[in-house]
Amino acid sequence: MKIAVLAGDGIGPEVTAQALRVLEALALPDLVLFEGDVGAAAYRRHGHPLPPETLAMARAADAILFGAVGDFSCDDLPRHLRPEQAILGLRAELGLFANLRPAAGFPGLEHLSSLKPEVARSIDLLVVRELNGDVYFGDKGERESAGGREGWDSMSYNEAEVRRIAEVAFRAAMGRGKRLCSVDKANVLETSRIWRETIIEVAKDYPEVELEHMYVDNAAMQMVKEPGRFDTIVTGNLFGDILSDQASACVGSIGLLASASLGERQTEHGTFGLYEPIHGSAPDIAGQGKANPVAAVLSLAMLLRHSLGLEQQAGWIERAVEGILDDGVFGGDLGGSASTGDIGDAILSKLQ
Amino acid sequence: MKIAVLAGDGIGPEVTAQALRVLEALALPDLVLFEGDVGAAAYRRHGHPLPPETLAMARAADAILFGAVGDFSCDDLPRHLRPEQAILGLRAELGLFANLRPAAGFPGLEHLSSLKPEVARSIDLLVVRELNGDVYFGDKGERESAGGREGWDSMSYNEAEVRRIAEVAFRAAMGRGKRLCSVDKANVLETSRIWRETIIEVAKDYPEVELEHMYVDNAAMQMVKEPGRFDTIVTGNLFGDILSDQASACVGSIGLLASASLGERQTEHGTFGLYEPIHGSAPDIAGQGKANPVAAVLSLAMLLRHSLGLEQQAGWIERAVEGILDDGVFGGDLGGSASTGDIGDAILSKLQ
Ligand SMILES: CC(C)[C@H](C(=O)O)[C@@H](O)C(=O)O
Ligand SMILES: CC(C)[C@H](C(=O)O)[C@@H](O)C(=O)O
Repeated sequence: MKIAVLAGDGIGPEVTAQALRVLEALALPDLVLFEGDVGAAAYRRHGHPLPPETLAMARAADAILFGAVGDFSCDDLPRHLRPEQAILGLRAELGLFANLRPAAGFPGLEHLSSLKPEVARSIDLLVVRELNGDVYFGDKGERESAGGREGWDSMSYNEAEVRRIAEVAFRAAMGRGKRLCSVDKANVLETSRIWRETIIEVAKDYPEVELEHMYVDNAAMQMVKEPGRFDTIVTGNLFGDILSDQASACVGSIGLLASASLGERQTEHGTFGLYEPIHGSAPDIAGQGKANPVAAVLSLAMLLRHSLGLEQQAGWIERAVEGILDDGVFGGDLGGSASTGDIGDAILSKLQ
Repeated sequence: MKIAVLAGDGIGPEVTAQALRVLEALALPDLVLFEGDVGAAAYRRHGHPLPPETLAMARAADAILFGAVGDFSCDDLPRHLRPEQAILGLRAELGLFANLRPAAGFPGLEHLSSLKPEVARSIDLLVVRELNGDVYFGDKGERESAGGREGWDSMSYNEAEVRRIAEVAFRAAMGRGKRLCSVDKANVLETSRIWRETIIEVAKDYPEVELEHMYVDNAAMQMVKEPGRFDTIVTGNLFGDILSDQASACVGSIGLLASASLGERQTEHGTFGLYEPIHGSAPDIAGQGKANPVAAVLSLAMLLRHSLGLEQQAGWIERAVEGILDDGVFGGDLGGSASTGDIGDAILSKLQ
């Protein structure tokens, strides 16, 4: 079993280091780790945020443990050399089409949310976001128009693309509350019309799942008003970008949330995928031991579950994290004073 | 001075009727009202949600007082005959390019929000949404692809379109807290790159306004975490659709929020525009006297201010509404028992 570790920039390496300590403690047999450069760090060393060697290493692995990318030093680079192109490049090149973003409150941490505690406590949802299509990867460019320079982008979804993500979403819903909300803008977009028609087709194979359609503007409203009403959400790349971040903000503790981006390839015991905290590289606090490694550790748990088939070990990690949060081991982001390493230590001792 | 009244469907006629009582009480000289059919009601009578006569009447007016459109009976109609096409048609045909959506908490009504009271109380923002461009009005259609049927839509903005909405937004910011947040997705979209570059150009003419750029995913996060940080927001049609509804949900009392959609044409004392509550037609409670007419009455206030130059009268109406809310005259949506007519009565007696 091969894991490519791409720690990246800012706090990425610090939080990933704690996840690796946890991985080591599990003493899994037959596990090989490879480390690669990505993001601003890779740009500085190789002239590109996603060098060919890194891409090859990622492709050869069963799973990728990703930290975070982004750095003030790159603000003035042309777009194709910016750190975030590394993540877009990995998604496109490796066919990572299914982004799973669970958002659920941690009991006792509701006060971190700007929502009323009873509303925050009710959140337990999963956003399934398509990652390989939509307006992200269509043709785009600049042209002259009667109104001066014009920027343009092409949005589209075809039936095969929608069916693929719909299957993931319906299966995920089957393993959760059996309710799926498909979010689109079918009153305006042709892309959404095909989206909705295909979702309705796929739904026939999942008669137990209660399917609802919601326009994205209404979904953004409901996500504030009554986020507890959602179980599983499936949506396209652009709306998923917005709604999954909104859902995380509703939970309130962004340093605690992890995500998986799955591909089509099956590994020996699961599905090829990339795992990362939803927080960014936070360059302003990098290198100070202030970063919360919980999201990185929970990303590792998702990796073990989805790519390596190690459900039991994933559960151990998740319970260890719940344990330290119950004990009040909080970093600065949660109003405590534990350092990155302290939190790693605490998780490790819970694991034992 | 001519006002076209398009009351529409569901609760539209009921709430508009209360706004018209208020207008009558102001006894403005030289005011002529025209009433037109729009939405599902217009489809039933004329076969189209925006009949040519209605469009002509709207075009000839100085301002349009709009209720709401939408009806269960239209769910199965082809898209071009659906009620919402009336509103898209009016925006496009009349060049209503600037949507102003103020969102501010009403003192004492913070408990209606799902946000913590101190967070809800801090909200006082204006979303300036572009309404005539973006992926809404680009070419779109369905085509065959390797993955089956494919829906596609074209997104674009040119410099002239962005400059026009930017001018509105910077001027609005000058009249408010002098802070403008421009929301885009410039790390992915070429449309957003032109958007951002043009905003930066226009900013040179408004050196007093503090300008910030934010990606839409981050904006959706901040709108939950710390909505009080926003003063004026400017964004494109699609992101504005999502963020303005999200902002309204943060305030919590959707029955109280109004909006203006302004065109380029100057009227004798202001700007041509359409004014409407942000709530929908709510067909489930139509005809029962349960609808809250406050948003319709506040839409009238916006109409008087922006299109007829009657700032004083607009202020009277707004203070009357604040007055009845202070007095606890609440409809069912605010946990009270006042009927649509009761609320209209209360506003009228405050006005006297
Ligand atoms: C960095 C950016 C291109 C990316 C996206 O929009 O997908 C990010 O916001 C995310 O959600 O992973
Ligand atoms: C009805 C719909 C087409 C419309 C839009 O998306 O603009 C509505 O959501 C709005 O915001 O006025």
